[in-house]
Amino acid sequence: MAATTSSSPHSLFLQSPNRNHPFKANNFSSFTNLKIKTFSTRRTPMSITCASTAAAPIHTQIQNQEGDRVFNFAAGPATLPEKVLAKAQSELYNWHGSGMSVMEMSHRGKEFKSIIEKAESDLRTLLNIPQEYSVLFLQGGATTQFAAIPLNVCRPEDPVDFLVTGSWGDKAYKEAQKYCNPKVIWSGKTEKYTKIPSFEDLKQNPDAKFLHICANETIHGVEFKNYPTPNNATGLLIADMSSNFCSKPVDVSKFGIIYAGAQKNVGPSGVTIVIVRKDLIGNAQESTPLMLDYKIHDENNSLYNTPPCYCIYMCGLVFDYLLELGGLEEVEKMNRKKADLLYNAIDGSNGFYSCPVEKSVRSLMNVPFTLEKSELEAEFVKEAAKEQMVQLKGHRSVGGIRASIYNAMPLAGVEKLVAFMKDFQAKHG
Amino acid sequence: MAATTSSSPHSLFLQSPNRNHPFKANNFSSFTNLKIKTFSTRRTPMSITCASTAAAPIHTQIQNQEGDRVFNFAAGPATLPEKVLAKAQSELYNWHGSGMSVMEMSHRGKEFKSIIEKAESDLRTLLNIPQEYSVLFLQGGATTQFAAIPLNVCRPEDPVDFLVTGSWGDKAYKEAQKYCNPKVIWSGKTEKYTKIPSFEDLKQNPDAKFLHICANETIHGVEFKNYPTPNNATGLLIADMSSNFCSKPVDVSKFGIIYAGAQKNVGPSGVTIVIVRKDLIGNAQESTPLMLDYKIHDENNSLYNTPPCYCIYMCGLVFDYLLELGGLEEVEKMNRKKADLLYNAIDGSNGFYSCPVEKSVRSLMNVPFTLEKSELEAEFVKEAAKEQMVQLKGHRSVGGIRASIYNAMPLAGVEKLVAFMKDFQAKHG
Repeated sequence: MAATTSSSPHSLFLQSPNRNHPFKANNFSSFTNLKIKTFSTRRTPMSITCASTAAAPIHTQIQNQEGDRVFNFAAGPATLPEKVLAKAQSELYNWHGSGMSVMEMSHRGKEFKSIIEKAESDLRTLLNIPQEYSVLFLQGGATTQFAAIPLNVCRPEDPVDFLVTGSWGDKAYKEAQKYCNPKVIWSGKTEKYTKIPSFEDLKQNPDAKFLHICANETIHGVEFKNYPTPNNATGLLIADMSSNFCSKPVDVSKFGIIYAGAQKNVGPSGVTIVIVRKDLIGNAQESTPLMLDYKIHDENNSLYNTPPCYCIYMCGLVFDYLLELGGLEEVEKMNRKKADLLYNAIDGSNGFYSCPVEKSVRSLMNVPFTLEKSELEAEFVKEAAKEQMVQLKGHRSVGGIRASIYNAMPLAGVEKLVAFMKDFQAKHG
Repeated sequence: MAATTSSSPHSLFLQSPNRNHPFKANNFSSFTNLKIKTFSTRRTPMSITCASTAAAPIHTQIQNQEGDRVFNFAAGPATLPEKVLAKAQSELYNWHGSGMSVMEMSHRGKEFKSIIEKAESDLRTLLNIPQEYSVLFLQGGATTQFAAIPLNVCRPEDPVDFLVTGSWGDKAYKEAQKYCNPKVIWSGKTEKYTKIPSFEDLKQNPDAKFLHICANETIHGVEFKNYPTPNNATGLLIADMSSNFCSKPVDVSKFGIIYAGAQKNVGPSGVTIVIVRKDLIGNAQESTPLMLDYKIHDENNSLYNTPPCYCIYMCGLVFDYLLELGGLEEVEKMNRKKADLLYNAIDGSNGFYSCPVEKSVRSLMNVPFTLEKSELEAEFVKEAAKEQMVQLKGHRSVGGIRASIYNAMPLAGVEKLVAFMKDFQAKHG
């Protein structure tokens, strides 16, 4: 019975679509010429069992018997691709024979310059970023951008429109009040952030300097499937894409600024990526802290001060990996397959599980759901953890369960969760 | 001849004072039970040769023959302790059997909380930080603090005194002009930042809100050996200690705020440590970006938003390592020994090498020097690099040579540099 067995995420991972996209010889596959060790895993009824003794990743060579990986459903920082972690581990101490770790490199040295330049170039390829946009690697998370954006784009008196579909959009609105004249033109708060309005009904201010949205609300699991057309003076649409960045193709040219903390889909916490149209750079308010002024970072290719070098390096490994998976079209297919599997399990549970979010705007990244018998939710989380599926507790502000299934969550992780959910329902339904 | 041989920094490291401070069994020494592989290194006339085949660190097990480490004299990001890197590498993929990398951990999970709490606790032990001070792990580097400090401590009209002994103090002064009324009460600029004035002669403004210093100027190699007593209204002294943080004991109680980017002595770039007296928290100017307000970070133990988790983890490993070395008194002894060796070589070169900084204020961390025949400086840097001693070029704003010899630079690295300097002089003197 699934609830009483366990299996190795290492091996399960081999069942994921990733497997269909071999790595280049000069890249991740450079591990494969190392000796392979197999796991001793107990049998499980899941179809994935057979794979579990087929092979194990090379990094087991240096795991010091610390045990297998878990399936980590955290909302961020979140699970990273196993092959990216293995590569990072193999070169942590001495990067490409440079005699030093990436963590020790001068940010002005040729080694790190090659790292940040490749990271930017690969990201430009992934998102097909037009040349008239700058890519900045900054610090401080989306929360710092909540201030930086109005400081860079607005005068204090400028009106700005906010479309608030969850907690993060609301936080962006509140911070903007310090630096411009923002207005919430629609809020899903009264409906507990489960909807996105029809764009036709939006009462946009024609004088607004920009329209702001949060493309995916991490806490509430509400995701834009298409984007409103700003009918404001500047035609500027600005989006916080922290929790669905690089999870699917995006037409960057529709946006004035796209910003994202890395720690969901593309790297560790500590680096924030800002994709900004160049004509928006250079007009910051006088009181703008130097480090929040896009101009200084743009002029110095994100190297005005010491950037978060190792975090940028990790993002670069992830970008390279996503390209080798086939780019964002392929990544979106994988993400859709995982999300469909999970939402279908919820909707097919005869109400034992339910997702409050309107079907048309359900997130492919963050899947919040509740149990009909809410008193069972704590046990659900506890039992899942025993099965090596962790961080399933919903955000403290909304409760319930939340499964974050970002790019790096293997299909096998979702399959295992769904099997567990059915088993849990059979026991408690 | 030294200039024509090379040896392994791994083995040289064994000659450093660190060797006298064995690691706890449950800690760094956990590597020693792994199989040891030796290097094939060429003989060198230096006394350290014999050690070079005695042992090699275990991480050579997973180096994939990428070669030995170099001696990295970069000003920051800078060299990190080999044992810290080895430990980080060994647990990168699966931290303490948690089934995940530290990079993947929820910042609100028990695993990461244990990491950040131990890091703070160890730092408090190292610097003997009084309870009335908060320790914050932030982002954005010292440059962000140049704005955050006046925003948190001053009203716009408040006068503030700056004692400017190098480029960094000057940058702090310029940024402060946006948020308060700063004045430079002394500047070493006309003497090319080679001095620190006698504190008695300082004309402090009795109404100043604080007195600001940069405790060690990374570019100019000027370091405070003791500190001025503020005779301003609040008695507040604030210091940027980015480039000598944790390099020696400091009486924290003499300061209102101590801040430091981690990337010189205590970790990778991407985390900034702020030690702030609690009574200075909670009075930020209204226009302060939320992420620059100490209050929100203090109330949330640096976990209001997602912190740079992996960078904080690395700092924690370094703090633990420094404690095992015997604490900052021992660290200062090592740093003094290394600095004396290098300054004596410069002063004993009959003018072939010279350091412009007044002897009484020479930095133990950053050693800038020039060659009498300045046309030889480029060759010096090039030849040193051939000997695996890298990043010796002086800052672009001052030229010449700069050897940064932070905590993690082994004594053997300075010994090798000094041997090379004598050899270079013999060839070109």
